[in-house]
Amino acid sequence: MSFKSFDELRAACTNLWPGDEVAAKAALARQDTLTKPQGSLGRLEEIAAWLARWQGRAMPKLDKVQVVVFAGSHGVTAQGVSAFPAEVTHQMVANFAAGGAAINQLARAAGAELSVVPLEVERPTGDFTQETAMDEADFLKAVSAGYAAVAEDADLACFGEMGIGNTTTAAAIAAALFGGEPAKWVGRGTGVDDAGLKRKAAAIEKGLALHKAALGDPLRIAAALGGRELAAIMGATLAARHKKVPVLLDGFVCTAAAAPLLGLDPAGLAHALAGHVSAEAGHRGLLAALGLAPLFDLGMRLGEGSGACLAVNVVRSALACHTGMASFAEAGVSQG
Amino acid sequence: MSFKSFDELRAACTNLWPGDEVAAKAALARQDTLTKPQGSLGRLEEIAAWLARWQGRAMPKLDKVQVVVFAGSHGVTAQGVSAFPAEVTHQMVANFAAGGAAINQLARAAGAELSVVPLEVERPTGDFTQETAMDEADFLKAVSAGYAAVAEDADLACFGEMGIGNTTTAAAIAAALFGGEPAKWVGRGTGVDDAGLKRKAAAIEKGLALHKAALGDPLRIAAALGGRELAAIMGATLAARHKKVPVLLDGFVCTAAAAPLLGLDPAGLAHALAGHVSAEAGHRGLLAALGLAPLFDLGMRLGEGSGACLAVNVVRSALACHTGMASFAEAGVSQG
Repeated sequence: MSFKSFDELRAACTNLWPGDEVAAKAALARQDTLTKPQGSLGRLEEIAAWLARWQGRAMPKLDKVQVVVFAGSHGVTAQGVSAFPAEVTHQMVANFAAGGAAINQLARAAGAELSVVPLEVERPTGDFTQETAMDEADFLKAVSAGYAAVAEDADLACFGEMGIGNTTTAAAIAAALFGGEPAKWVGRGTGVDDAGLKRKAAAIEKGLALHKAALGDPLRIAAALGGRELAAIMGATLAARHKKVPVLLDGFVCTAAAAPLLGLDPAGLAHALAGHVSAEAGHRGLLAALGLAPLFDLGMRLGEGSGACLAVNVVRSALACHTGMASFAEAGVSQG
Repeated sequence: MSFKSFDELRAACTNLWPGDEVAAKAALARQDTLTKPQGSLGRLEEIAAWLARWQGRAMPKLDKVQVVVFAGSHGVTAQGVSAFPAEVTHQMVANFAAGGAAINQLARAAGAELSVVPLEVERPTGDFTQETAMDEADFLKAVSAGYAAVAEDADLACFGEMGIGNTTTAAAIAAALFGGEPAKWVGRGTGVDDAGLKRKAAAIEKGLALHKAALGDPLRIAAALGGRELAAIMGATLAARHKKVPVLLDGFVCTAAAAPLLGLDPAGLAHALAGHVSAEAGHRGLLAALGLAPLFDLGMRLGEGSGACLAVNVVRSALACHTGMASFAEAGVSQG
């Protein structure tokens, strides 16, 4: 799918598949027959039903788990919003390719296939305090790249990001979508000091004022204030819905990137679970705004898809119980 | 180690190995060189250092992960404290052997070796509302069986339990060790109703009154009010310390079982992390009393070692990052 206009993309983001209710109910019914007190596996039981609903089969599978890391460069780094120099984005893409980053190890530990999609890393987006980050064509190109990255035969997907400056971008999107002071949404990212935190909030305030005309439209918000890797995550998350691939969201940037889908359809993120809540300041509030309860709260704040990828193991465990456990009848165990 | 007296066991529970401070520091120092903002892997970094400290090597390994499920039968079931009949303990041991229980699936998903140690399941302990659950010899036999179950070459261990009635036993131990009304410690276990909850609290009140003389001594508490599988978990957790095997604690029963070690040595559980906080009512308060922060909070309440086993995947991921990531220097990435 290569989107040609905001309107075409908007249409693709509405009237979404509601999931397979029959498969979800069958999965829950099966859970109640397994050799454990009903409900005693807690969220693992919900996860089994969630997989069933969004894969569209009562006995889901996890043969192919995708982790896709999108990378982009941000013009807003000119405002001194990051503790790391902008060239680190490029260097980290090389580190992903060489297998040396955290996400390489986490994907392997989760039995997931990692791919990395750099999005014109050498060409930063516009500085949103001065101009739109991306024009319509630029934005749609990144969304389409994200859309194309999701395999038709994937059983579960995690989307990660790398982009020095992108916690500022994400906070700008969150502020634009959900309101509140910029200070509510900004955090220390890779490690800025108090002055850096103020520069982040000031940049967002400036951006929101400059792009006031865009604020009613989730897609224009994502184009004016966002980044290519965030646009790609939105496209990938949409593709996953169309392709029946449940999604584990990662941290603050990933969640903010996907959030416009909820603005376009009230059930736009129903196929996504929050892998974790990160230590980045705005994430907890953002998840609450989206009605998502994270699986982990381990103080992580790395991005790259790391928190989502960690949660793949939980989903695998949930599925292992769902498909592998004996029923009371099969095992000859008395029920309560 | 076969313990012959309370005093001999008590001696083995004190002056414990403090862990390898040098290895832990080296692990933390290594973490700071890896290609990520310092501290951005959150608790995964702590876990790497914890493994290093308690395995006694800066580069830990997880070649052999043990999950041991202990099973026992409880005389206190005569007080109507469980939603399931007592024979389920025996039936579930058969289910473990046949590979049909949740823990079978979770252990496989975590790459762990599962073993099951039934402790005279056909011979329930005494009903603690009427007599001591176990006399000194009976108790020490179970502790010793637990001790023997931990392999010298294990790299990590999870201890689980199966025993209809044992959330009552665990609540009695918690109340005896940490005080507070029995109602604070009892929960629904496998699913008792409000009347069952009252019967649990009443049984504990009666037990605490009957065994008043034992209440100053963690070991006598565990013998008078406990159960064989709980005693075995205590022994196994102690063995793990002696054998340099870090431990992931499971839910309420497992945590209560291990808690007497803390009463005997203020650092008696320093080698243990809480795998999760269960939905069983008393667990959150018990973890707080022990100063433990759980890795998961997923509403699980199954026992069997299920929550601990789920957490093995987190520890594996932490280790994968620790050993597999490139340093800034190796990857040629600029630092902030």
